[in-house]
Amino acid sequence: MRLSRRHPRYASLRVRASLADAAGRGLVAPEGLIAHGRGEAFDYLLGERTSPSARRAERAAAVWLRHARRPVLSVNGNVAALAAGEVARLQRAVPGLSVEVNLFHRTAARAALVGRTLRRAGVRGVRGVRPTARVPGLPSDRAWVDARGIAVADVCLVPLEDGDRAEALRRLGKRVISIDLNPLSRTSRAADLPIVDELCRALRGISRASRRIGPSPRDGRLPAFDAPRALAEAYATIDQRLSRAARRRKPPR
Amino acid sequence: MRLSRRHPRYASLRVRASLADAAGRGLVAPEGLIAHGRGEAFDYLLGERTSPSARRAERAAAVWLRHARRPVLSVNGNVAALAAGEVARLQRAVPGLSVEVNLFHRTAARAALVGRTLRRAGVRGVRGVRPTARVPGLPSDRAWVDARGIAVADVCLVPLEDGDRAEALRRLGKRVISIDLNPLSRTSRAADLPIVDELCRALRGISRASRRIGPSPRDGRLPAFDAPRALAEAYATIDQRLSRAARRRKPPR
Repeated sequence: MRLSRRHPRYASLRVRASLADAAGRGLVAPEGLIAHGRGEAFDYLLGERTSPSARRAERAAAVWLRHARRPVLSVNGNVAALAAGEVARLQRAVPGLSVEVNLFHRTAARAALVGRTLRRAGVRGVRGVRPTARVPGLPSDRAWVDARGIAVADVCLVPLEDGDRAEALRRLGKRVISIDLNPLSRTSRAADLPIVDELCRALRGISRASRRIGPSPRDGRLPAFDAPRALAEAYATIDQRLSRAARRRKPPR
Repeated sequence: MRLSRRHPRYASLRVRASLADAAGRGLVAPEGLIAHGRGEAFDYLLGERTSPSARRAERAAAVWLRHARRPVLSVNGNVAALAAGEVARLQRAVPGLSVEVNLFHRTAARAALVGRTLRRAGVRGVRGVRPTARVPGLPSDRAWVDARGIAVADVCLVPLEDGDRAEALRRLGKRVISIDLNPLSRTSRAADLPIVDELCRALRGISRASRRIGPSPRDGRLPAFDAPRALAEAYATIDQRLSRAARRRKPPR
C-alpha cells in the first residue's frame, strides 16, 4: 500500500503500516492490531503528547525500577514491533533490568520471533521464550512466565498488558507499573503506578529519568505513588480536549 | 485461540476473534483491525449503548434516506465482516438504496470478496466491485467509485469512512451521513449528519426508523439536522462517563 504524504494523518498511517507488516510476519497477533487501535484512540484524546502528569509517573517509575531488587520489563508482540530499540535503551539505563517475553496469544513461533527481535535491537539475556513457571489464577496459555524473571520479580513494568494478568501479578504482591493509554482500563486501574502515555514516549521518558537518578540503593523500598490521582489527571486531560473540540467550528464546506 | 467465557470482556473478545479471522481470509485489511480498535475505545467511552442523541440521528438518517432521490450505502471490508446481514436488512427497509463496495485499501481480490459476502447475506445489485468513476481530489486507489452509484448519489451513508473521502464527497455537494464512534474524527466533523454509534446498532436503528416512516416523497428535500449539536452531545456523554470513572474506587487488592 502506497501512503500519501499529503494525508493529514501520515505519521499515524506509517506506524499502522509497519504494524500491519509485523502482523504479516507473525510478530504481532491480529488482536494486537485491534489493541493498537484502542491505544490510538486514547492517544488522540490525550492530544498525542506526554502530559505533565504522565511525566511525573515516568519519573516515579524510574525511581521504582532503580530501587527494585529484581525489576522485570514484560514484552509482547506489539512492544517488540513498536519499541524494541527503546527496550534496549531502557535496559542500558536501568542496570539489572530483566526483559521477558510475555504473550497473551502465545505460540512458540511468536515467542521465538519476539526474542529474536529484541536481541537484534541489543537487548541482553532475553527471558521467557521458553517459559518455566505459571502465575496462579490465570487460564490456559496466559499464565506462563519465566521462573527467574516475572515469577520472582518485585517490580514489574508491564506495557500494553491484559487486565487479568495485571491483577494476577498484583495479587502475587508484586509492584505493577503499567504503560497503557486507556486510563479506564482494568490494567491502569489495577496498577500501583499507572503511566497513561504512548509506549515509545513512556519508555524514553523512563530511560531519561533513570539516567538522571544515578546509582540507587537496591533496597526494595519504593516511594509512594498516588495512582488514583494520576488516573484522575488523565481523565481531566481528555475532558479538556473534548471541551475544546466542542467549541471548535466545523470545517468550511 | 481458545476464548475463556470467564473473561470479563468475553463478548468483545468474540467480535475481535471473528474480525481477526476475516483478516486471515483477506476480507478485512490489517489496517481495518486497527480501525476497529479505535472504534472499540470510543464505544467503551460512550458506554457501549445507543445514546438518546444517536437515536435521534438514526431517525433523521432514515428520513434522509427515504427522501433521497439516489441514496447509496458505502461498504468496506469491516462493514461486510461485521454487518453484512444488517446491510441487507437496511436495503429491504429503504427501497431504492444502492449498496456500493468502497475500499480504502483496494485490491481486486478484496473488492470481489466484499461483494460476495454482501450477496450471500442477501444484498441485491452490489455496485463498485469493478469501479468505473473517480472522486476528484483524492490520491491513488482511494478515489474509485461506481459511475451509477456514489458518483451520482445525492445522499451517501458512509459507515467507518476515511476523513479525506468524507470531505471529498461533501465537496461534491452530496449529503453525507456518517457512522463513526469517534465524534472528533474528521469524518464525523465533515458529515452533514454524523451518527456516533456502533455500526450494527446504528444500521438496526436506521432500519427500524425507516420501516416506521412509510412511503415518502422522493423529492430530495431533506429536513435540517443540527450536526454540531449531535457531536457536542457525544462529547458530553463521554465526559459523564469519565466523571463517573473518576469517582469510582480502585479494585480491592
